[in-house]
Amino acid sequence: MFIKKHLVLIFMLSFAHAAFADDGYRLWLRYDKIQDKNTAALYTKQLQQLLFPGSSATIEKVKAELTEAFTGLLGKPPVGTKQVTANGTLIIGTPATAKIIATLQPTELNQINDEGFVILTAILQGKTCTVISAKTDIGILYGTFHFLRLLQTQQNISTLHIVSSPKIKFRLLNHWDNLNRTVERGYAGISIWDWHKLPDYIDKRYIDYARANASIGINGTVLTNVNANATILSPQYLVKVAALANVFRPYGIKVFLTARFSAPIEIGGLKTADPLDAAVQAWWKQKVKEIYTLIPDFGGFLIKANSEGQPGPQDYHRTHADGANMFADALATYNGIVLWRAFVYSSQSGDRFKQAYEEFTPLDGQFKSNVILQVKNGPIDFQPREPFSPLFGAMPKTPLAMEFQLTQEYLGQGTHLVFEAPLFKEVFNADTYQKGKGSTVAKIIDGSTNNFSLTAIAGVSNIGNDINWCSHPFAQANWYALGRLAWDYDLSSKQIAEEWLQQTFSNNAFFVSAAYNIMLHSHEALVNYMTPLGLAHIMYNGHHYGPMPWGNTLGRPDWNPVYYHKADSAGIGFNRTATGSNALAEYKTEVSDLWSDSNTCADKYLLWFHHVSWNHTMRSGKTLWNELCYKYYTGVDSVIAIQQQWNTLEKFVDAERFNQVQQLLNIQVKEAVWWRNASLLYFQTFSKMPIPSKYEQPDKTLEYYKSLRFPFAPGN
Amino acid sequence: MFIKKHLVLIFMLSFAHAAFADDGYRLWLRYDKIQDKNTAALYTKQLQQLLFPGSSATIEKVKAELTEAFTGLLGKPPVGTKQVTANGTLIIGTPATAKIIATLQPTELNQINDEGFVILTAILQGKTCTVISAKTDIGILYGTFHFLRLLQTQQNISTLHIVSSPKIKFRLLNHWDNLNRTVERGYAGISIWDWHKLPDYIDKRYIDYARANASIGINGTVLTNVNANATILSPQYLVKVAALANVFRPYGIKVFLTARFSAPIEIGGLKTADPLDAAVQAWWKQKVKEIYTLIPDFGGFLIKANSEGQPGPQDYHRTHADGANMFADALATYNGIVLWRAFVYSSQSGDRFKQAYEEFTPLDGQFKSNVILQVKNGPIDFQPREPFSPLFGAMPKTPLAMEFQLTQEYLGQGTHLVFEAPLFKEVFNADTYQKGKGSTVAKIIDGSTNNFSLTAIAGVSNIGNDINWCSHPFAQANWYALGRLAWDYDLSSKQIAEEWLQQTFSNNAFFVSAAYNIMLHSHEALVNYMTPLGLAHIMYNGHHYGPMPWGNTLGRPDWNPVYYHKADSAGIGFNRTATGSNALAEYKTEVSDLWSDSNTCADKYLLWFHHVSWNHTMRSGKTLWNELCYKYYTGVDSVIAIQQQWNTLEKFVDAERFNQVQQLLNIQVKEAVWWRNASLLYFQTFSKMPIPSKYEQPDKTLEYYKSLRFPFAPGN
Repeated sequence: MFIKKHLVLIFMLSFAHAAFADDGYRLWLRYDKIQDKNTAALYTKQLQQLLFPGSSATIEKVKAELTEAFTGLLGKPPVGTKQVTANGTLIIGTPATAKIIATLQPTELNQINDEGFVILTAILQGKTCTVISAKTDIGILYGTFHFLRLLQTQQNISTLHIVSSPKIKFRLLNHWDNLNRTVERGYAGISIWDWHKLPDYIDKRYIDYARANASIGINGTVLTNVNANATILSPQYLVKVAALANVFRPYGIKVFLTARFSAPIEIGGLKTADPLDAAVQAWWKQKVKEIYTLIPDFGGFLIKANSEGQPGPQDYHRTHADGANMFADALATYNGIVLWRAFVYSSQSGDRFKQAYEEFTPLDGQFKSNVILQVKNGPIDFQPREPFSPLFGAMPKTPLAMEFQLTQEYLGQGTHLVFEAPLFKEVFNADTYQKGKGSTVAKIIDGSTNNFSLTAIAGVSNIGNDINWCSHPFAQANWYALGRLAWDYDLSSKQIAEEWLQQTFSNNAFFVSAAYNIMLHSHEALVNYMTPLGLAHIMYNGHHYGPMPWGNTLGRPDWNPVYYHKADSAGIGFNRTATGSNALAEYKTEVSDLWSDSNTCADKYLLWFHHVSWNHTMRSGKTLWNELCYKYYTGVDSVIAIQQQWNTLEKFVDAERFNQVQQLLNIQVKEAVWWRNASLLYFQTFSKMPIPSKYEQPDKTLEYYKSLRFPFAPGN
Repeated sequence: MFIKKHLVLIFMLSFAHAAFADDGYRLWLRYDKIQDKNTAALYTKQLQQLLFPGSSATIEKVKAELTEAFTGLLGKPPVGTKQVTANGTLIIGTPATAKIIATLQPTELNQINDEGFVILTAILQGKTCTVISAKTDIGILYGTFHFLRLLQTQQNISTLHIVSSPKIKFRLLNHWDNLNRTVERGYAGISIWDWHKLPDYIDKRYIDYARANASIGINGTVLTNVNANATILSPQYLVKVAALANVFRPYGIKVFLTARFSAPIEIGGLKTADPLDAAVQAWWKQKVKEIYTLIPDFGGFLIKANSEGQPGPQDYHRTHADGANMFADALATYNGIVLWRAFVYSSQSGDRFKQAYEEFTPLDGQFKSNVILQVKNGPIDFQPREPFSPLFGAMPKTPLAMEFQLTQEYLGQGTHLVFEAPLFKEVFNADTYQKGKGSTVAKIIDGSTNNFSLTAIAGVSNIGNDINWCSHPFAQANWYALGRLAWDYDLSSKQIAEEWLQQTFSNNAFFVSAAYNIMLHSHEALVNYMTPLGLAHIMYNGHHYGPMPWGNTLGRPDWNPVYYHKADSAGIGFNRTATGSNALAEYKTEVSDLWSDSNTCADKYLLWFHHVSWNHTMRSGKTLWNELCYKYYTGVDSVIAIQQQWNTLEKFVDAERFNQVQQLLNIQVKEAVWWRNASLLYFQTFSKMPIPSKYEQPDKTLEYYKSLRFPFAPGN
């Protein structure tokens, strides 16, 4: 009996520990040995030699990556050669570095831009070769990472013809990281930037961060919080920033900083920060010069001004354009850019939804050419679902950047599995009709609609110093998706999820399809159990953890949940039609027509634009109240289904990450029920209608849910 | 040419990554395969079978540990057996669980206590066996970890005769961790306690934390900061504490909490926290009952009262004994204990050195039997070197616990390599003469001098959520040393350092002796470049990072460096003789006689007790000023020697940790020079004497050093 138990124990443990443990640190760059013998053998045959001339800081990193990847995937590092002496030669280079590529002169090279790459199967000197070529070393970097992705996902590499360039110029992470290492809206530990030990201590994480970003095409990072601290611009800190820039440079990643508008006063000793004041302009010019002396390829500034208490040009009765252009002038000499955030809303707003449009559209055309306006995907603030921001169709003379939030401030924070690619795609594919049908948000962002070469997509980072970077193993997928979609927004959520799963967990087809199914439904599930039918911003005050639709205690109306749902005895929802705030008028007619009639408006946006009676008949034939109940219960059921599906995947995943996800899904189910019950019990006080008896009724009272407090909720 | 470079590159990389990388997470429980073939073969022969009957939560953990260890060290898990059928049988059990041990009845079992263990080589049924026995499952746990340490350090296990019991009953870590996860004086990230995700999410770290502690004999942990928050005592948080207790229980680790003295007011709704108030006493009794209902083996409370702004009994004109005894009464029913901290000093103190003695000695004998007074090793506050606290020789009727600080608040914080075992040993070995010669601090702490069974040693944790737990790879050694010395304070620093190095880095003899040499000299080096000759507390205000001997701006005199060194034109040092504060009178005459004469007082304590003229002739024949210069320069030279020694060890250490330590030593050298120059330039303004010309002169001015600011220094 003991023996049996013990042997079982032995099995369990060797499974649980050693071989099968994975702490998630390696992200999607695991390079574990390819288990499928045939595939491994084939790759070994197809990659017998490496012809990789040239050398530069970037090329050395690419060679290092190849060595690590081949050693991991195939059991041995690549064998260098100077000639094509056999089939299965991998050739990597630019026409400048590799004669053979110059002679080959693939016409495809003319189809790519400076960051693009070409991967071809070709016959050279009678031998079958795989050729990764590009115009620049950075293109080589991206091409090699793409090729390694093919190997990691076990694709057929026998006849490759890949021509790829990024559709967006600046593909950025925005870190809301403070100098004391707290991270605003961070749920994965503290900042990975250990400012105190910089510049002398280079954490291995900085290098692995650069590798991970380069592997998905991210080419810039804003190191500091948009709620900025001027200290980052002091000489003491700029040398620290320079040390990070030195680590990132070979990986094609530029550093950006957030500029505190009042820095000339706080660290410059000036009396004003007026953007039209000559001394202020001179101070910034000098500061920018100081930065470029240390960091020749510094990217520029991201600036949050006159928003949520941040100082800005309006403090001096100047416009956002006045402010942005001051920085633009200082940066222009060095090809630096200004990312000016459009996230503004003043306290005396009629409808917060309309504010950014009202403040910025009058300024269209007034910004210098190296200024790009960074706009959140929706008009409010990273809600589970929002209609696209009307600014995207309204500023033809101004380059617009997309700001998504990877960190899940309003999407379950650290404990909910939510794959955001479908959310990103929904925004990209939305049609603004700015220049007629097909003027999608993507076509605005990529510059094609209004002919801009300055383009950018930013994701607010979900990275912290947790061992696995993002706390929730599946949160890594949102970082991954941002990079992949910024490179090519036409990639499908399915392809992104599947290649991420294959690299991060397993190539097992059953696992991948089951886990993809989980990811695919996760966003809609969250929308349903948190804010269905176009509800928004009913999270708890401040930390935004959990439901608080009753919230009505904050000084500013537009900080209170009741402002957003406007539930009353008559119904629920925010009337933004002509009979209400008329925010719909900020969209082109083709768009507003879609949403202006509560009988034709899509369910998912209904309460964004209409105050609808509890008895309103929905498409489904149900009353609004019953539809609301249906959605909330469906949301919970979806998470339970996801939980059950995950529990069937234990044998495909290492014990460590399987248990992490399992525990987190258990929490997500609990919290989904909490969201459903608290929200419906509260809204019921207005609808006076019963939760249909077929549903499991709430087991706690509204008073109980109102009594919950979370004094130390993270990220606040 | 390319090929050559590339091959070199390949070598470097496969070395740097894959095989040889070690992120330090596994601490001293790495269980890597034993490389020495002979040793591995011998162990395999000596450990052919495992006879390990019995089952309990603890036993299952021990079996799991054995499986992981054997699989790692020897390549395969142990083979279970029910009989001794071969030589090389490892038998583990208690007389209760293993008949064979009951029959064997080793007399050694009678020599151990309930946590102790016996490891013997014995002939059983004609076969050579190794027997690990104990009276309890916890003894089995400790015995097994001891045995695994023998294997990891590749000791001869052919003729073992080990009988071991801990000399101290409570061997504790104190976490100064706040509920928002910041760690007071923490330099290794944030708290590993993720309160927000508890109780539903059990981080693997909690389990590995318990394993690491059990492996060195630590049997209790105080989860929360001594600057306490009453919220931890709320029902919402107690279930989180219970979840951690459930993880730790099988590993023999009890949880303790810090009790905020004013909790009855803050969360109890009472008007007072007066310890003699019946309602207050009832509230605590009820609270304690609530805790034990959730955590039947709860350890008790650690309390900081009437110190640095913390509330306490004196707020109600009661004594520390009144306060401690109130908790003691509530806990007694459940065998819980009170750890009452003696770290007190009021703002109108004449000499902070004397305070704890003045407040507590009058209370000797007034504390209930389940109260132990927790005393910092020195009279001030964890300085690089202090004389032992006079309390250790002055309270014969009160059990005294030792409080050491593992986190290096005053010892270089996150970046200095300082092995603290020599510091701990210096304190343990100091003779209080309380009951004549030989009444060492160790003999006070272990209860033998005054006959107490309630004994404790606590280390203020240096653990955070950094991947390698303690930030500096060598800081792990201080956690390790605390556990080992709390079990047996007679262990030498050498043995502790060597076994830690063997388990954590390598068994290579050259490496171990060289790295031990680094560790051995590290503490004295730090004392010399920071606070030689008995200087103390001249660190920067608040964050205590870097030198600030000129500090004189804080409201309380005893918070200012100038209060401690008292440098003036006449000399330097704090006169604590009869002509001064007479703090020396708090020691037994045999002790004070050693230190009361500036001509005979040991150099290392000189400025602790004497204000000495700059011209004072030291033992060395040098003037005090020249001796001070000599010590500061010697300190820096020692660190440079350490740095050079480490640089010779690259081939013995994985690249990841080698680089970490190398970078940190570079910082340590820089900061040692900073300490030396800033301190000497400042003291020179009083001595008016030159830094001897043979020394490299400071390259910066005193004004420069005074101008340095570190607004975001960690741990503050």
